[in-house]
Amino acid sequence: MVYAAKKFINNPNDVVTEFIEGLVETYPGLQYLDGFPEVKVVLRADVSAEKYDKVAVISGGGSGHEPAHAGYVGEGMLTAAICGDVFASPPVDSILAGIRAVTGAQGCLLIVKNYTGDRLNFGLAAEQAKSEGYKVETVIVGEDCALPPPRGIAGRRGLAGTVLVHKVAGAAAAAGLSLEKVAAEAKCASEMVGTMGVALSVCTLPGQVTSDRLGPEKMELGLGIHGEPGAAVVDVQPVDVVVSHVLQQILSPETNYVPITRGNRVVLMVNGLGGTPLMELMIAAGKAVPKLQLEFGLAVDRVYTGLFMTSLDMAGFSISIMKADQSILDRLDAPTKAPSWPVGTDGNRPPAKIPVPVPPSRSTKSAKSQTRPQELSQQGRVLEAAIQAAATVIISLKDSLNEWDGKVGDGDCGSTMHRGATAILEDMKHYYPLNDAAETVNEIGSSIRRAMGGTSGILYNLFCKAAYAELKANAQSAVTPKHWSEALKSSISSVSKYGGASAGYRTMLDALIPASQVLEEKLSAGGDPISAFILSAEAATKGAESTIQMQAQAGRSSYVSAENLATVPDPGAMAAAGWYSAAARAVKEQYGGSS
Amino acid sequence: MVYAAKKFINNPNDVVTEFIEGLVETYPGLQYLDGFPEVKVVLRADVSAEKYDKVAVISGGGSGHEPAHAGYVGEGMLTAAICGDVFASPPVDSILAGIRAVTGAQGCLLIVKNYTGDRLNFGLAAEQAKSEGYKVETVIVGEDCALPPPRGIAGRRGLAGTVLVHKVAGAAAAAGLSLEKVAAEAKCASEMVGTMGVALSVCTLPGQVTSDRLGPEKMELGLGIHGEPGAAVVDVQPVDVVVSHVLQQILSPETNYVPITRGNRVVLMVNGLGGTPLMELMIAAGKAVPKLQLEFGLAVDRVYTGLFMTSLDMAGFSISIMKADQSILDRLDAPTKAPSWPVGTDGNRPPAKIPVPVPPSRSTKSAKSQTRPQELSQQGRVLEAAIQAAATVIISLKDSLNEWDGKVGDGDCGSTMHRGATAILEDMKHYYPLNDAAETVNEIGSSIRRAMGGTSGILYNLFCKAAYAELKANAQSAVTPKHWSEALKSSISSVSKYGGASAGYRTMLDALIPASQVLEEKLSAGGDPISAFILSAEAATKGAESTIQMQAQAGRSSYVSAENLATVPDPGAMAAAGWYSAAARAVKEQYGGSS
Repeated sequence: MVYAAKKFINNPNDVVTEFIEGLVETYPGLQYLDGFPEVKVVLRADVSAEKYDKVAVISGGGSGHEPAHAGYVGEGMLTAAICGDVFASPPVDSILAGIRAVTGAQGCLLIVKNYTGDRLNFGLAAEQAKSEGYKVETVIVGEDCALPPPRGIAGRRGLAGTVLVHKVAGAAAAAGLSLEKVAAEAKCASEMVGTMGVALSVCTLPGQVTSDRLGPEKMELGLGIHGEPGAAVVDVQPVDVVVSHVLQQILSPETNYVPITRGNRVVLMVNGLGGTPLMELMIAAGKAVPKLQLEFGLAVDRVYTGLFMTSLDMAGFSISIMKADQSILDRLDAPTKAPSWPVGTDGNRPPAKIPVPVPPSRSTKSAKSQTRPQELSQQGRVLEAAIQAAATVIISLKDSLNEWDGKVGDGDCGSTMHRGATAILEDMKHYYPLNDAAETVNEIGSSIRRAMGGTSGILYNLFCKAAYAELKANAQSAVTPKHWSEALKSSISSVSKYGGASAGYRTMLDALIPASQVLEEKLSAGGDPISAFILSAEAATKGAESTIQMQAQAGRSSYVSAENLATVPDPGAMAAAGWYSAAARAVKEQYGGSS
Repeated sequence: MVYAAKKFINNPNDVVTEFIEGLVETYPGLQYLDGFPEVKVVLRADVSAEKYDKVAVISGGGSGHEPAHAGYVGEGMLTAAICGDVFASPPVDSILAGIRAVTGAQGCLLIVKNYTGDRLNFGLAAEQAKSEGYKVETVIVGEDCALPPPRGIAGRRGLAGTVLVHKVAGAAAAAGLSLEKVAAEAKCASEMVGTMGVALSVCTLPGQVTSDRLGPEKMELGLGIHGEPGAAVVDVQPVDVVVSHVLQQILSPETNYVPITRGNRVVLMVNGLGGTPLMELMIAAGKAVPKLQLEFGLAVDRVYTGLFMTSLDMAGFSISIMKADQSILDRLDAPTKAPSWPVGTDGNRPPAKIPVPVPPSRSTKSAKSQTRPQELSQQGRVLEAAIQAAATVIISLKDSLNEWDGKVGDGDCGSTMHRGATAILEDMKHYYPLNDAAETVNEIGSSIRRAMGGTSGILYNLFCKAAYAELKANAQSAVTPKHWSEALKSSISSVSKYGGASAGYRTMLDALIPASQVLEEKLSAGGDPISAFILSAEAATKGAESTIQMQAQAGRSSYVSAENLATVPDPGAMAAAGWYSAAARAVKEQYGGSS
């Protein structure tokens, strides 16, 4: 069965008028003439023929090339764009309406792409307008370099290079030049530019069936902007090779289409034909520039990369190269309000790349390998005991964690945590500066990052980083229980924010949040710190066990059925409760208490 | 056989670094950190961390969404963009490098799309940066409205609405606000926007095989920007219906995703997903605006239509709606140098359409129906005789012209010319103001336009228009032979320019150009005008007959083999020689000469 190509349209006959309606909604500087469906003319909202004291610059042609031509309407570029139906020249009366709407005493320049229909309709409109007393000049652009030198003018099509001619003419008109001078600049620009297109697929007209003229693994060289057949169909090549071929074709001394020789300054336009992503266009541009510089000896003064003159949904691009002296560059750089002319393309070129900055000195110091102190302070000994206990309990929980995780996740929670705990115990022997609590916490994060990997590795790394930053900022001299409480809060907040979970989501936070709350509460109430730690550890365990009743709301377990979840607690929560409780008990033991 | 999707790339692993190289060639205001392939960071060329006295705004994420995020780097928007591989979160060290490169004393804001990988990597980088002494805030954007309210934060994806958050934050930072205030504005903006996407096809990653998950006649609603499955697959609908559905979904009072109610002011973003032409995006925008106004009672203050956050080559679009008070509008309208933020979208909205202008008064007069004068002047009588003779000979040549055209064209040259000649004879009886040569020539053009049609009709219409304009401008009182000669030259020039042919192209110009040359030469030499006309007519006939040896270089005959062409003269040239010679003989007879 044969299907019309899928498109986001209504009636295929209305695509151009509906496009114009959307265009003027988007750009308040544009208006259209109320003559649908015959007259489809987009014009500057700030120009009226009676009062306009500059040369009007008008272009247009068949539609399907958006943003051309209506997107180039704006101060400094086109004064009006005459839109035909898709790939069909606009009728004479439509062109005349556009001329009459914007042409003042200075006259108008028509810029016409070199297709027979456009030449004839714009030409007849020009002659009619002249007979009505308007001053009219016409410049025809045919800059296609894909085919051998033509036997007649019909052989060279007007392509994306026409947009550069629009810009030169529009800037000349905005500068207040006479019609003769604007036309002369446009004509000169049209003779300085050459274009060639390549495509991976041809376009499909609204309402028609998708064509696969090329087939897989084939590309077409030198085709036009209406899907007209190109010079050759060849195997798909890396874009590097395609760009080289296109540049050679445009700059060929045999055809001598553009008067560009070594040492010249040029501008480059890489134009997407509609279906090719910007990423690919930028890749082509990035390859074209050094080739032009090194292989052809040209200075590339400006690069325009984007969608300028498309062919509906065609996957392909064209390259245009224009010889550019300072006066053309000035025209191209001149300000314009045309919405589809690119911004940010002018100005001096700084070095393309700069060195990756080194970490700031403070961090450089902390990145230097830490070492375990010869002598531990009392606090260092307590910290060591807590870490030792916490890591040991995680190692002992490996199989339980894996078993629970096997029911609600991918069964490796115990193994992953085991890797982290083992690394911590190993690194602590040599590297942890245990007398400095903040730096030790940071080192624990590094051990975890190195050994654990995966989401849980990043989450625990985040946990340690946040605690480190909190301790570093607020506990320069000695670390108090209050500092540890604040560090825990900061860690939880960080894991919650970046991990996306909070209380009740069936994650490690369901152990840590109750622990943090109890710890803070007891300390604020002036309670004994050791008891506060122990009580908070009990809250952690209770919290972890309560996950057995919880729905998963984040992480992998969120895809597991409630029935399965109801048989086991969350392994992440159980692990957190495990290490927290072990640490609390170790602290109590160190300070001589008994449980 | 299975083929990788055709793309303009080199090695699929290099697409992001090569994209960045092309990007900085295109935009001289951008630079990148020299840390390829791991560190892929694009930053403002005019910012260095040591001296930067504003809040740095940093975003990023997986690549494949171009122009996001690197295209939004520029004064007034992002300070740096961190690029991951295609659809993969950038690693922590890359984000850190970006933070260090642009963050000064005012700190930095990280704007992160709500994907687990991005949250964790940006989050860890933020914590690391804080531990290095940087002030860092993070805002996570998850504005997807396609799916039912999620059980966890992971359920709402960050989509194109994130670009609006970039703009608000960037403008706030550029205005010199503190980090806390910039972060607060970004957070507020992120809560004001909702987005939903639809697609006709899913994207294909570089080096992978094209997926046709949807198949013909199907579209997907509510899918993400990585091709993640959407809420539903349905039959393709007119875009009108699609837009209505999307708007209802975003503004649904049940989900209550965005705090927008009747009477609110909003901005609209219609974002192309990569493979959908601008024409279709504009059609969607043009439909969305009146629906928002009329069906939802909202004032639409700004419309942004284009490619903002793509998904490689996916054919689809997303709509974002943001509640916008004046302060948000001011941020959105604030100037920026970011190359991919749209221009021309702000300002007051004039009426979208204005009336088609009526022809100027002079033309209105000439458009009034002319009438044949009661009394003919001598010149009027000569003109009548010439027209009569010219038309009559064309009528008599009908069969010969058709026969010749049958061999080199589509065989209707005689019939077409016959229609024109008949119309001229008929109209002359009533309408031609024969005492006014210029207006009469204009009327001949009108008769031809009405009766002939096709390319030859337009060409002869052009011929008459050009002669009319020349005569009107330079022969106000009486028309001299010199005026006729100039008119002929002007006509030939017009036909040549717009028709694309010149001497030797095997067209009517091969009769008319020699005639014009002889006429001008003889008149300049002071020769008798009647003899000059007769001699020029002989040159026309000789020129027409010489076409039998010519290759066709324009028009339909250019597709005919040389062998076939060599058997007949060009019918257009023979017709031109015929009417020209008949007119010349008639003039001679009128002035009493004998041939």
